[in-house]
Amino acid sequence: MTDATQLIAEMGARARIAARVLAAMPAAAKADALRRAADALRDAEPTILAANADDMAAADTLSPAMRDRLRLDSGRVQAMADGVAAIAALDDPVGQVIDTRTRPNGLALSRVRVPIGVIGIIYESRPNVTADAGALCAMAGNAAILRGGSEAARSNRAIHAALSAGLSAGGMPADAVQLVPTTDRAAVGAMLAGEGILDMVVPRGGKGLVARVQAEARVPVLAHLDGNNHVYVDAAAAPDMALRIVLDAKLRRTGICGAAETLLIDRAYPDPAPILRALIEAGCELRGDASAQALVPGIAAATAADWDTEYLESILAVRFVDGPDAALDHIARHGSHHTDAIVTEDGATAEAFLRAADSAIVLWNASTQFADGGEFGLGAEIGIATGRLHARGPVALEGLTTYKWVGRGSGQIRG
Amino acid sequence: MTDATQLIAEMGARARIAARVLAAMPAAAKADALRRAADALRDAEPTILAANADDMAAADTLSPAMRDRLRLDSGRVQAMADGVAAIAALDDPVGQVIDTRTRPNGLALSRVRVPIGVIGIIYESRPNVTADAGALCAMAGNAAILRGGSEAARSNRAIHAALSAGLSAGGMPADAVQLVPTTDRAAVGAMLAGEGILDMVVPRGGKGLVARVQAEARVPVLAHLDGNNHVYVDAAAAPDMALRIVLDAKLRRTGICGAAETLLIDRAYPDPAPILRALIEAGCELRGDASAQALVPGIAAATAADWDTEYLESILAVRFVDGPDAALDHIARHGSHHTDAIVTEDGATAEAFLRAADSAIVLWNASTQFADGGEFGLGAEIGIATGRLHARGPVALEGLTTYKWVGRGSGQIRG
Repeated sequence: MTDATQLIAEMGARARIAARVLAAMPAAAKADALRRAADALRDAEPTILAANADDMAAADTLSPAMRDRLRLDSGRVQAMADGVAAIAALDDPVGQVIDTRTRPNGLALSRVRVPIGVIGIIYESRPNVTADAGALCAMAGNAAILRGGSEAARSNRAIHAALSAGLSAGGMPADAVQLVPTTDRAAVGAMLAGEGILDMVVPRGGKGLVARVQAEARVPVLAHLDGNNHVYVDAAAAPDMALRIVLDAKLRRTGICGAAETLLIDRAYPDPAPILRALIEAGCELRGDASAQALVPGIAAATAADWDTEYLESILAVRFVDGPDAALDHIARHGSHHTDAIVTEDGATAEAFLRAADSAIVLWNASTQFADGGEFGLGAEIGIATGRLHARGPVALEGLTTYKWVGRGSGQIRG
Repeated sequence: MTDATQLIAEMGARARIAARVLAAMPAAAKADALRRAADALRDAEPTILAANADDMAAADTLSPAMRDRLRLDSGRVQAMADGVAAIAALDDPVGQVIDTRTRPNGLALSRVRVPIGVIGIIYESRPNVTADAGALCAMAGNAAILRGGSEAARSNRAIHAALSAGLSAGGMPADAVQLVPTTDRAAVGAMLAGEGILDMVVPRGGKGLVARVQAEARVPVLAHLDGNNHVYVDAAAAPDMALRIVLDAKLRRTGICGAAETLLIDRAYPDPAPILRALIEAGCELRGDASAQALVPGIAAATAADWDTEYLESILAVRFVDGPDAALDHIARHGSHHTDAIVTEDGATAEAFLRAADSAIVLWNASTQFADGGEFGLGAEIGIATGRLHARGPVALEGLTTYKWVGRGSGQIRG
């Protein structure tokens, strides 16, 4: 057994004990502990900022984007504390009764939400994940084992110390949220190994991290790899709405997983040129099929690879299709089952699209950029999942629970 | 690429196309196809029995228990057809709305049940699984790839041919339910490899099969490995009820996964000896702790291994414990998270036990042998799951679905 394997096994054993205590904590007690943790984060601002300054000083070779993700200031620390307090205000799913049935023999059965158990979070440079993910797991009654990026190690330790002190002061076990104290990459392997340590792992970061976790994990992974999202503008779309939704879906923020990456336009849509011109005027590079190129100057030729690319920048692939079925075929072939939208005034076409599009999130007359737990009214999300089992789309507290069957009888035997 | 890998990849590609058609089929059309499949199974009885006779003739070195599992007769073929017809009568979960919410911006969100996609079933000598599992997957809108045991190959082919002809006659795609045509073990490896072919795999068979699938699978597995179930007789148990439940939980059928394997008795329970004597009189071998041995003659000493053993025969481990918390500690340490029961007249003790026992099924004053989809009112089950994610306990049609988020807007942008 390597040092990392032994370390993770020991942390897992402590987490398992903590999880049993957390599973029995009433909602109010968990919320109180989270509010204390929020206060502790606010109080620890000077310590957290000093640790972050040390991380930043050691990170001078990182890209500006990575440095920005790593950097904390007073506003970001306060926002982190506010986020933890907001989680404390969410409805606790644990103990909720999903459904009930009474059998002819009188046995009363119900399905009741319970925590999952021990959840691992593997993340990169954003230190706020330490607080967000730890608080979400704990509020849903799970123990968490957090493993952040090495470049944020000092920040994560400072945030974790404050969070954990607050949770403990509020009555949670000291091991409710543990931070892996080493940046040894073997620790990640040990977390993914599936020795009964973790019940689920959530990777939070870039595609490289998610792909590694999906490839190596022997435990269930809650994640999405790609958000290759489509907006389909139907023949019956309202032009103003189509323009507004396409621009927002692509350009509001280009780096988020809900951003649109391919625009599909029905050949029967009366006047597509204004949409393409507006995108170009807004600084978006278009890569189109021959129809798009013929329609508006300045559109590069799309290659086969473009239909499968999640750009995450101001580039959009554009294809003309023969109606909604052709759009669905394109999405089935090239989509990543994340978020796809149709713009149309035709309700029957819309409903058929909503039924047939095989994505975690399908939208009618709304921007793909709504793919977000907060926008869905779920509160903070642990992530967006494109897998087919357990939880899909934005995953918040409920996705961090499972259920058990509870049967209440009066001496029933199978006989 | 080996032959088996290529075969499974090709079957998977056909299944994926079939799954898209199945996902769009209305409930009535799926039910009609299943009823036709039931009729086709009835009509094919002579062919199926002839194929089974060939399998039986080739299986003369198998154990009597395995030969019994393999053997078909007219009653079993009719029961198989009845089972398929019963699945056709179940409520279709696909399209059910789980919940809805309308956001302040007017975006109307709902979660709607959808099929999972392509499901693999890997099973052993019982040929009826070909019909049961295929029909369950198809009714929930999933394509199925079935891989049965080599000893049942001829029976499975005959059953599959009839099932598939009936489903096709009812309008399902020809590839809705496919049977792997080779008994090459490499085909199982290819199914488990996680190349995007299967969305989930369900092993149906003995512990060796389940353990292999769990160890090798790179796709989610729906299964239980052990049913190391407990009955806890509390101080406040009604003696008649305790006796009846313990006898049923252990002895009604000893070979099923819901059978009790350990009896925990509160030291404060007034008169435990009659329970132990009744078990012995009914032919059950008891392996007990010192208290049990001191109480009733003829009880062997339990070793540490007994607490972790799923006997699946007329053997029961017996331990005296200091109240419900000690029982829960024992279950947490030795249980397999399948089914555990408390017998007590004390409602507060019962509710605390139901909350704290971390099992897929927890029962109060009822036999563990109720762990069954039919007994739960779910209709036929694909299996019983003890994993923590997706579906737990008896898994029937609903557990063969997932959900997607559907959003209906009126031009909302994130802005």
